[in-house]
Amino acid sequence: MSASRKGDRRERELVNELDDAGFAVMRAPASGSATERDLPDVLAGDGESFYAIEAKSSSGDPIYLSGEEVESLIFFAQNFGAKARVGVRFDEEDWYFFHPGDLYTTDGGNYRVKLETALAEGEDFDELVGRSARTSLGEYADGDAGGNGDA
Amino acid sequence: MSASRKGDRRERELVNELDDAGFAVMRAPASGSATERDLPDVLAGDGESFYAIEAKSSSGDPIYLSGEEVESLIFFAQNFGAKARVGVRFDEEDWYFFHPGDLYTTDGGNYRVKLETALAEGEDFDELVGRSARTSLGEYADGDAGGNGDA
Repeated sequence: MSASRKGDRRERELVNELDDAGFAVMRAPASGSATERDLPDVLAGDGESFYAIEAKSSSGDPIYLSGEEVESLIFFAQNFGAKARVGVRFDEEDWYFFHPGDLYTTDGGNYRVKLETALAEGEDFDELVGRSARTSLGEYADGDAGGNGDA
Repeated sequence: MSASRKGDRRERELVNELDDAGFAVMRAPASGSATERDLPDVLAGDGESFYAIEAKSSSGDPIYLSGEEVESLIFFAQNFGAKARVGVRFDEEDWYFFHPGDLYTTDGGNYRVKLETALAEGEDFDELVGRSARTSLGEYADGDAGGNGDA
């Protein structure tokens, strides 16, 4: 399977996961969006949270995004009224999500996410959709391991 | 130009008008939306208002929508957290918008919009995007020309 077909399949999986989690989801058309503007890959809402997501999957590590991709995402999200998220998916891993402002910026003005950073600092799918909150050791010690049920 | 190409061009014009009016807009992909669900033709937001729009243009009069189209629109809009609107565009006319609940229902469970109804009762583009509010004579008399917003 080619890299782009694999990326397409993974993006569809993300859309279906969001749908299963109760979101109404629209995927950007491959072409013919009508305006000249770059669109995010996925737009999702559940009546409370709205997300504009740029979704990148790769068999390589790290994953790179161009400055333009991220700026277009932020522009669209702010204009629409959605939260901007960059979703990254490495081979054999789940999706992890980042606020664009939390991404590492290269000297050349691009954005980079390493696998180890995604695992350590990324928001996982359940956190994104509000099913759980990442907890620190301190919180475990306090007996507060976070809500497990749906919000 | 075929009917479907004309419809496509007009839908693009609507997207561009919404863009010009300050909305971030995503058009549904022609195929490959990932889930089995029917998507609205257009999803637009400006940070305050979110619209899911089913857009129908026709050289004929009246314009018909199937019950399934309208139900899918309402389902998506409610789930996403957007206002559902049916946009109709007759030849030589501008777009007019209806709340699905205000559409005429046929005995067969479909929906019908006549040109004369669109002109008399439809919300025009400026009203949709909040640039003007349609006023009745009574409202003028009361000095209350505003307050056309959605509940």
